[in-house]
Formats: sequence, structure tokens, C-alpha cells
Amino acid sequence: MSVIIVGSIALDTVKTPVEEHADLLGGSASYAALGASFFSPVRLVGIVGDDFPASEFEFWKARNIDAQGVQRARGKTFRWSGEYAWDLNTRETKSVALNVFEHFQPVLPEAFRQTEFVLLANIAPALQAHVLDQVQRPRFVVADTMDLWIETTRPELNALLPRLDLLILNDSEAREMTGETSLIKAGRRIRESGPRFVSIKKGEHGALLFGEDEFFSCGAYPLEDIHDPTGAGDTFAGGLAGYLAGTVKGEVGFADLRKAIIYGSVLASFNVEKFSLERLRNLTQDEIADRYRMFKLMSQFEVLP
Amino acid sequence: MSVIIVGSIALDTVKTPVEEHADLLGGSASYAALGASFFSPVRLVGIVGDDFPASEFEFWKARNIDAQGVQRARGKTFRWSGEYAWDLNTRETKSVALNVFEHFQPVLPEAFRQTEFVLLANIAPALQAHVLDQVQRPRFVVADTMDLWIETTRPELNALLPRLDLLILNDSEAREMTGETSLIKAGRRIRESGPRFVSIKKGEHGALLFGEDEFFSCGAYPLEDIHDPTGAGDTFAGGLAGYLAGTVKGEVGFADLRKAIIYGSVLASFNVEKFSLERLRNLTQDEIADRYRMFKLMSQFEVLP
Repeated sequence: MSVIIVGSIALDTVKTPVEEHADLLGGSASYAALGASFFSPVRLVGIVGDDFPASEFEFWKARNIDAQGVQRARGKTFRWSGEYAWDLNTRETKSVALNVFEHFQPVLPEAFRQTEFVLLANIAPALQAHVLDQVQRPRFVVADTMDLWIETTRPELNALLPRLDLLILNDSEAREMTGETSLIKAGRRIRESGPRFVSIKKGEHGALLFGEDEFFSCGAYPLEDIHDPTGAGDTFAGGLAGYLAGTVKGEVGFADLRKAIIYGSVLASFNVEKFSLERLRNLTQDEIADRYRMFKLMSQFEVLP
Repeated sequence: MSVIIVGSIALDTVKTPVEEHADLLGGSASYAALGASFFSPVRLVGIVGDDFPASEFEFWKARNIDAQGVQRARGKTFRWSGEYAWDLNTRETKSVALNVFEHFQPVLPEAFRQTEFVLLANIAPALQAHVLDQVQRPRFVVADTMDLWIETTRPELNALLPRLDLLILNDSEAREMTGETSLIKAGRRIRESGPRFVSIKKGEHGALLFGEDEFFSCGAYPLEDIHDPTGAGDTFAGGLAGYLAGTVKGEVGFADLRKAIIYGSVLASFNVEKFSLERLRNLTQDEIADRYRMFKLMSQFEVLP
């Protein structure tokens, strides 16, 4: 099964305490699509300007990422520039230029409309809803969001929630959205406001998953060195949604989501090892399988002798 | 097997945003001893003043906590008073009165000196070392520490490290001790400075365990309401050490420590549900077994159908 992924496609300038790189491929949909592509075919929806490298379209094709849904508009590609603090845990947005993204109205190609799995990667909730409207019979809908939308477009976000199977957001966002300090309370409260499942990402501390009567908690894969945290959350969402689309035949259940969260975490852990999408471009299925196995081993309470 | 536990025995005044209670039984050894007593006999070492309630000695006796090593001195019992912030994640010490603790020189009763398991609960490293000196042939030595000792008695702490099998400390303390922002690097660095194993506690985010080539990560048991976080770390250490003493026959290995960390986390999760030791006083083995099972279920990647 394929997964539709809509989100931003950007050219990023990223500065860490150690390095700075300009005009890197970025954006939520770029990371999510590449993450998902390890598990299922991807149908990508987004917009780029006429400065966008044609080589990227070739790369997507080779990765079974169908870019029919990527509009090429006159003007410049969306640009984002950010700088990470010394511990790489916080970042400051230095500049944003929406460019062609400003008047983006996603239109799904006819061939995309019957896709069953949908990932609404991080963009404005109104755009997420607009894409979802065009999917004829979605089976499982995942959405990612961020503090910007919680603060500026809350009504649109609230309207989207009941249409989602899984909402993904990070810990500070879950607290902000609910006013609850306890992540356990926050996760449950958000679930009650619409999505069947909620996943709270905690960065270096892993992730939580809330279902109706079920709960799952996992750590993050232990990394000594992180080079660029950009796109970790998008890659997590992409790996997760791609795993579900590529693997689950019947109804998506809590057991499927547990594994999907681990695969999402594994993909995200690779992503931060290099700048931009460099690590994911060269990642192999064997490396994913190895890390999944290690991840499982390091989380087991009881190890068989 | 028994476990020796040395630490502070205190009367605490604790204020949360919701309640305030005075003259509660507290101190690292009180929490650790009661936590350990669910798994093994305890040999308690500490000091109290003549204001200390005699009923507590009766309670210890009933719980198989041997208080021969608790000195009763003239003067007042050690007192601590603290106040928690609105989110219960940070606290401020309002006052400390060392009282009889000021000139405490722990002396192990003869009957204690051959104990194989030792928990040096949170007190000054020099006192921890002094107790360890008196144990004839310790088999597994666990120590807890805190920021105060890292900042004020670092040489004594450093001298103790190579004598430990397991050092327990929290995430901010691990960062402070090593200057590393990555907890993975911090844990490995501390392990290289002496202890065979290191466990980093992360509060609501669970705990990490580092061995020579092994790593274990677990979340925290999900609680909606926390009433009093005081003693959570001490109870964790006590449950962990008690589990090892009561269960492990041969050499303590990484698989034993995984389970010990979960039992420590389970005990700590109960402890914070009520003030002081009230929850632990009424806790049952069935409740512990149930929560261990739930904990395992919520951490499993792959659930058998």
C-alpha cells in the first residue's frame, strides 16, 4: 500500500555549534517521504520553485516516491534558516521565506485520491484538511503538528483532530495544547478531543503512545553524537506511516502502532547522524533491521538466557 | 540474602502546591529500607534523636528491617523542609537542621559485617566509604549520590567510585559530573571512572542503565497524579538493591539489573502516590506484581497475539 505525504519542501540553512550548511534539501515532506520510502511507495504532495534542483525529482523516482503531486511554481522554493543551541536541544528560527509556499493550494492528482494511508506532515492545519478532503476513503490518517499551529490556528487544528487516527506532537506542544504538566494527562486529554491515538515525542527521552485503554512507552535509540536534529520529527512520522502502509493488512491496531513507533524512532536516529537527508540517502534495509534488533534488546525487561 | 542500607533518617516538612505536612518520616535510608524490604531482609544503619517516634522501630521490626545499626543519640533527629514548584518537577530546600546527624559516625554491628549486598543511600561520600570499610566481603555495592556531593565533596566521591558495582544518579547530576550534555556520553564516562554499572534516573522519563557493552532504557510508570515526589529516588534505589539481594544467587549480571531497575521504578511509582511513606506502608506484593506486569506490557515492542 502507498502512503500520501503532504508537507513542506524547503531549502534549509542550518547552523549548529560545529558547522553551518546552506541550501540543504529540507522541509517536513522531504524528510517524511524519504523515511516512509523504506517501507512503502510514497505519493508526495507539495510545491517547489524554479530554483529547486531537478536532480531531486530523479532521486525521488529512484526511491519509489511519486512526485506527481509536487507543483513546480514560478518563483523561489520555501526557505528556512535556523540555529541550534550548544546542546542541540533548542533551536532558533533565524529566517523564513514562504516564497511559492505562500499561495500553495494542494491539488491531489486523480491517481492519488484512492490512497488509503495518509500522512499530513507538518504544515498549516487548513492545508492538511484541504488535502484530506480530496482523499476518497482514507483508512488511516496520521498528522504531525507544531507549536506555531497550536498558537496561531487553533480552531483549524481542533476541527482536524476528529478526522485523525493518530496525532503526533512533541512534549512541550502537548503541554501547551492542554495546559497539563503531566504528559500522561496531556496525552489522554488530546485523545479525548478527537484522534483515536496520540503519540508524544520526547526527543532524547523517546516517545509515548496513547490508545483508548492502552499505553506504550519507549526510549530513544542511544546516540553519542548528533550532528543535525533537523527533520528528526518528520522522519519519525514518515517512518511510522510508511511502516503502517507497507505492512498492515487489516485494521491498524495498537500492536502495529508499537512497532511503527520503533521503526519511526530508528529512522529518526539515523537521520540526525548527518546533515539534511544525507544519512537517509545512503541508509540500507540491513542497517534498519540491525538497529531495530538492538533497540528491542536494549528495552527488554526479561532476556531469555 | 540481606542488604545493608545506610543513609539519612529524617523528619521532613513537605509542601506541595496542594498540601503541606510536617514531621513526616523521611530521609534516604527510611525510603530505601522500606522499598528494599519487599524483596529481602534489611540491615539498617543510621542515627536518630530522642524525639524520634519509638513506633517506627516497631514498624521496622515487623517489616524485617533490622534496626540494630540505628544509633539513638541525645538531641534532635535530622530535619529537612522543602517546597515543590507547581509542576512538582523542581523543589527548593527551605531548611536543613543536621542535629544528631552532624557528628554521625556509623558503626556496623558485628552481625552486619558479613552482609553481601550493600546500598549506600544518599549521604556524604565519606560516610558511605566509612560504612563500606566495615563490610568484610561485599558482593555487590550500590551507591546513590546527589548534586550536593558532586559540588562539595568531589574528591571523596571520586575515591568511592572504583569501589562501587552500581552508581545511581539523576540526569542533571550526570551532566554536571561529566560536563557532557549527552546522557549517553555522560553515562559511559562515569562508568569509565569506576563503577561497573551506572544508572541514570530521568524522573518522568524513566531510567537508563550502562554496562560495559550493554545498555538498557525504560520509561517511567505512567501516573496521572503525583502527590509527593519526596523519596522517589531513594525508594528506587532501595527496591533495586532489595530485589538483587533477595533474588540473585550467582554473580549479578546485566539481565538481573534490568529487572531490578523495573522493580525499583515500580516501588518509586507507588511511593509518589501519597505523602511520606504512607503508600509503601500499605503496599502489597500483589500490587507490585500487577504493576510490574503492566509495566512490561506497556514497554513491549512486539506483543504475542
